Amino acid sequence: MHIVITGGAGFLGARLARTLLAQGQLSLAGAAPRPISRITLVDRAAPPADLAADARIAAVTGDLNDQLAAPHAAFWREADAIFHLAAAVSGECEADFDLGMRSNFAATHALLERVRALGTKPVLVFASSLAVFGDSPEQPLPEVIVDQTLPTPQTSYGIQKFIGEQLVADFTRKGFVRGRSVRLMTVSVRPGKPNGAASGFFSGMVREPLAGLPAACPVPDSTPVAIASPARTIEGIVRAAEATDAEWGPRTALNLPSLATTVGDMAAALERVAGKAATALLDRAPDAAIMRIVKTWPGRFETARAKALGLTADPSFEAVIRDYVRENPDAVKLPGVA
Amino acid sequence: MHIVITGGAGFLGARLARTLLAQGQLSLAGAAPRPISRITLVDRAAPPADLAADARIAAVTGDLNDQLAAPHAAFWREADAIFHLAAAVSGECEADFDLGMRSNFAATHALLERVRALGTKPVLVFASSLAVFGDSPEQPLPEVIVDQTLPTPQTSYGIQKFIGEQLVADFTRKGFVRGRSVRLMTVSVRPGKPNGAASGFFSGMVREPLAGLPAACPVPDSTPVAIASPARTIEGIVRAAEATDAEWGPRTALNLPSLATTVGDMAAALERVAGKAATALLDRAPDAAIMRIVKTWPGRFETARAKALGLTADPSFEAVIRDYVRENPDAVKLPGVA
Repeated sequence: MHIVITGGAGFLGARLARTLLAQGQLSLAGAAPRPISRITLVDRAAPPADLAADARIAAVTGDLNDQLAAPHAAFWREADAIFHLAAAVSGECEADFDLGMRSNFAATHALLERVRALGTKPVLVFASSLAVFGDSPEQPLPEVIVDQTLPTPQTSYGIQKFIGEQLVADFTRKGFVRGRSVRLMTVSVRPGKPNGAASGFFSGMVREPLAGLPAACPVPDSTPVAIASPARTIEGIVRAAEATDAEWGPRTALNLPSLATTVGDMAAALERVAGKAATALLDRAPDAAIMRIVKTWPGRFETARAKALGLTADPSFEAVIRDYVRENPDAVKLPGVA
Repeated sequence: MHIVITGGAGFLGARLARTLLAQGQLSLAGAAPRPISRITLVDRAAPPADLAADARIAAVTGDLNDQLAAPHAAFWREADAIFHLAAAVSGECEADFDLGMRSNFAATHALLERVRALGTKPVLVFASSLAVFGDSPEQPLPEVIVDQTLPTPQTSYGIQKFIGEQLVADFTRKGFVRGRSVRLMTVSVRPGKPNGAASGFFSGMVREPLAGLPAACPVPDSTPVAIASPARTIEGIVRAAEATDAEWGPRTALNLPSLATTVGDMAAALERVAGKAATALLDRAPDAAIMRIVKTWPGRFETARAKALGLTADPSFEAVIRDYVRENPDAVKLPGVA
């Protein structure tokens, strides 16, 4: 089985590749599991060294739109499954409208048209986002988001992801692909470097203090957030590829499970794991641009469809932090953190 | 004031132009009314003779995508308001996927980008459709559609219109246009010739018998339908341009008011107006392709937002038929119909 991951050198793409390599096989849409012979990572950046060293990994480095326009790239034709994770992130798309339209809107459309032209009907998992839900004074979000809640995006990123969901749904209905869209929650704790996402501080406020570094935490304690750990997020993405059509149900995007917490509770969990030395590193100076985006996102979901697929939320943010510490020992420098 | 109507030679576009010419002025988004000096009708077809003869009408004949790519067309730059009605209709889009993607998806995007590049920030009214709502076994529609109901389109036309709504919303949020999207209900009775819409028979089943001609009525009596007369439809489109931002409210598309009726009740109303000689002309042979599309559409709406804007539904389908007879005396040939 050949798999393509767009955004495959990014944090989630690389983690997905490692997960798939470790399990060695994949069941697509309920079919019998087949061994994974190759995973092609399409990304602007080169893949991490561990993946580059694996004989089953192929790296295709460059702009996704260029790769989609390349007439002879065999990996699109050979793909049994495509995980479409490549995207410009929320803060970038708000600052640079054209970037978002090119990277999220045009690239997703081009990917679907490429696959349609090939006639290979792969399983295609599209990573959408909770950012399709946006609160506004004219149209407040309900207290709890359910599977049937109307998305009213308040960012260009959210609009572009929501349009991607619609395209995936119709290309699937027409039989051109077997698409499933999953809405990722705020992923925390992301290892590595900050990215341009407005949600980046939700990871940075834990990752940097654990490394002994100061970190911005630019929104009030009361700010609600729907969190999923990297492990739970990848579980959701893989399950989307595996579910039978009947299990998957409607073509509407699936809200993945999340832990409803607040920035204040996250800081308290950090303090329980790493002490006051950690929270003392948090810079609480507000950032209006980030707050303007983050405050439109919902904090509480009821995810009945995801539950029926066997997907669950993290039990607590403290558990999420402990997972991060265990998985990233080299990134934890603060004295006294196990 | 300069106005552009895409699809301006079509039935609704021409009726909108006549309405605007008759009122002579327009208030845009709550501003003081200004006289209408020119209306440019962009359409593949030439406008009807009465419009072509009006000195305030300019006709631009050709493909909308070509007109949007034409670098020197002054009417885009001069437009204070754009009514974007041009579209490929539901049946065509289901039969020819590329046609729909080009005419509905790409053209709407190109129109928004053209206006954005000009920096003129016109009021832009986008004609969306009740076809954004689609019933399916995996995701049944609620009994009554309200303003917050999640669209789950089950046709390419519905998906393309729903994507258009999202683009209009974000280009508006960014300040590139002042967009308002209205979801048109099933318009009946349309005069003239049948078009490729799956909903075409909802007009044909009245128009053709009144003309003494046989007509297809290819779905069961029990089929629900949300109807609006041409007059009510144009009222909603004009109101969308006139409303202040505060009256208009959220950027989500507005469901226009509709009369909840059924095909059986429509036939009974026809018989009350035109006798058994009219209903005897109905061919009740089922058409599976039309039924497959039509049965996914909702029949009953509660339109609180539209009501707050002062918009109302037609009182009865019998009244709708009598309006048609009064407005189209030359098209009524059946003996004994007043």
